[in-house]
Amino acid sequence: MSGFSLELLGQDGAARTGVIHTPRGDIRTPAFMPVGTAATVKAMLPESVRETGADILLGNTYHLMLRPGAERIARLGGLHKFMNWQRPILTDSGGFQVMSLADLRKITEEGVKFQSHIDGHEEFLSPERAMEIQRLLGSDIQMVLDECPALPASREVIEKSLALSMRWAKRSKIAFGEQPGRACFGIVQGGVLADLRQRSAEALREIGFDGYAVGGLAVGEGQPAMFETLEATVPHLPTDRPRYLMGVGKPDDIVGAVERGIDMFDCVLPTRSGRNGQAFTWDGPLNLKNARHAEDSGPLDAACRCPACQNYSRAYLHHTVKAGEIISAMLLTWHNLAFYQDLMAGLRTAIAAGALARFANGFRARYGESGPSPA
Amino acid sequence: MSGFSLELLGQDGAARTGVIHTPRGDIRTPAFMPVGTAATVKAMLPESVRETGADILLGNTYHLMLRPGAERIARLGGLHKFMNWQRPILTDSGGFQVMSLADLRKITEEGVKFQSHIDGHEEFLSPERAMEIQRLLGSDIQMVLDECPALPASREVIEKSLALSMRWAKRSKIAFGEQPGRACFGIVQGGVLADLRQRSAEALREIGFDGYAVGGLAVGEGQPAMFETLEATVPHLPTDRPRYLMGVGKPDDIVGAVERGIDMFDCVLPTRSGRNGQAFTWDGPLNLKNARHAEDSGPLDAACRCPACQNYSRAYLHHTVKAGEIISAMLLTWHNLAFYQDLMAGLRTAIAAGALARFANGFRARYGESGPSPA
Repeated sequence: MSGFSLELLGQDGAARTGVIHTPRGDIRTPAFMPVGTAATVKAMLPESVRETGADILLGNTYHLMLRPGAERIARLGGLHKFMNWQRPILTDSGGFQVMSLADLRKITEEGVKFQSHIDGHEEFLSPERAMEIQRLLGSDIQMVLDECPALPASREVIEKSLALSMRWAKRSKIAFGEQPGRACFGIVQGGVLADLRQRSAEALREIGFDGYAVGGLAVGEGQPAMFETLEATVPHLPTDRPRYLMGVGKPDDIVGAVERGIDMFDCVLPTRSGRNGQAFTWDGPLNLKNARHAEDSGPLDAACRCPACQNYSRAYLHHTVKAGEIISAMLLTWHNLAFYQDLMAGLRTAIAAGALARFANGFRARYGESGPSPA
Repeated sequence: MSGFSLELLGQDGAARTGVIHTPRGDIRTPAFMPVGTAATVKAMLPESVRETGADILLGNTYHLMLRPGAERIARLGGLHKFMNWQRPILTDSGGFQVMSLADLRKITEEGVKFQSHIDGHEEFLSPERAMEIQRLLGSDIQMVLDECPALPASREVIEKSLALSMRWAKRSKIAFGEQPGRACFGIVQGGVLADLRQRSAEALREIGFDGYAVGGLAVGEGQPAMFETLEATVPHLPTDRPRYLMGVGKPDDIVGAVERGIDMFDCVLPTRSGRNGQAFTWDGPLNLKNARHAEDSGPLDAACRCPACQNYSRAYLHHTVKAGEIISAMLLTWHNLAFYQDLMAGLRTAIAAGALARFANGFRARYGESGPSPA
């Protein structure tokens, strides 16, 4: 773990703020990681992603292994050079996308066989191959391969899946081996069953990881169940390692998870919403397609320093969304990533000041606790 | 014409270099104007367009009148503010797009009735309305409404169309009126018939314009016929006014037209090609989709200072084009616009040095005279 460490700088209730030190740069926590699926954060140049305040990106092993291929990226000098992002990159294991995107999956003890959703060719992902791919990419934080059953599922199904995931976690850790300055994270599974989450956390601690992720949430269980599961899980994770809630989420999901001790997040929501004409603001999400913006000469958010807010009116954003212009995806993605990073900065400052409850309650009062539908 | 003037700084054969002074900034000539059809140069932020060296953009009256509407843009403070481009903008009259895009066109002496290609609603464009729209947009250089018959056409058809265009030019000029600092350009028509081009040029000089465009070319007549037509037209245009070849063109078209005395160009080729995975280089166009780029770690063009060439490999561009990622449109559009602007800068320098023939011949020898197909 040389060169990779978590330094805690402040605590407020269960929430923490700090810095993850890595050879490629520091990651301020709580951190939001924009998703760069296919070696690009969609509709953004990496220098613009950095300008929003991002310290780290997420790359998707599943997409990159299929196209352009991990060995090719390695021959071209690794993912950082390939995509022009020199700061830390976390890669997932590919397991989640195999379950959600690939065709004709077949899971065995050894791993998972599937067909590419791009061209149908057959691929095989095992814990060992997942770690090999992430090593070839040059990933700074590598995730173990796990299996994530679709919810709702019976206790029996979840328990069986969890056992497999824990055996795969062990194999992943062994395959990761020693990579100075790089980290290997385990993933807690167990559905929304508190005792299974505890069992999973303890099994992973037994193996020993550089960080601990919470997987299998934000898959339809609802925010209350997600928060309850976090409350049942986080106390069983070590305090001196980063905690990462995978694939989460809406701004109010993030605020609640930070209050429950989570340090890292990733989600496609800000980027995907930006391509769909939706913008996040402190007063809740907005749909720029709505005709009420057509003659609005005001900015999206007067307090935001992103180019969309500094240089354009809501009327312009409405026009370019309606016309299907690429600039609308560029500007709204930039704004949404800036909003997420501003939210994380606000959370960090609030935790350091011991004022998280006030910040979080103020956020919810203005934004809307349950994340209103775009209007 | 107060505030709008052409200052000639050098001449080499028929070619000229100079500066068009406008209240919104200077335009170095020969100039290439990127096309910002719907109030955006597709896949680019305006500050990036400026970084490539563009002094002026073109906006399309047809698109803007249909969506978001000229009156709306006027209420929002004009096109410059709307699209965040404070430098000069030239707008066409809408006539060309009415002919090529709209449904159910009906041309009368009064103007042209048509249906929007977006939602089918009926619109009417007359010389007076075309100029009113351009005034509402706040355009710095406004074009007369003309009619451009599809080629090939009989002499009779071209002659009749030309007569109508000249009557519309007169009405357009009257409708333009006095707009200090803004310019009104006439458009020479006449197909590829030298005597009609001369007649058209003389008719426009009689009316008196701030600049003279050559229209109705690059519509399938071929480069030799286009160049012959320019040779038959330019000598009949005043030397102290800008000359603008509309909708042209490929890099070698531009070089040949500059040699024949043209000062201004616009074309969708660099932007549209960029969205289709094609890149312009001094060695001719490249198609980044081609598999031979898949493992090429070298830049698109080692001599180019655009972000695509400075920060990415051909392999990355290939990957993102194949994956349909927006960043490929962003990077290749930026590169192509930078290439076009570098070409214009090279032409300006060569003319000023009296070395245009050497520059143009060197360009053609390397690029390929007839503009090879992308490979």
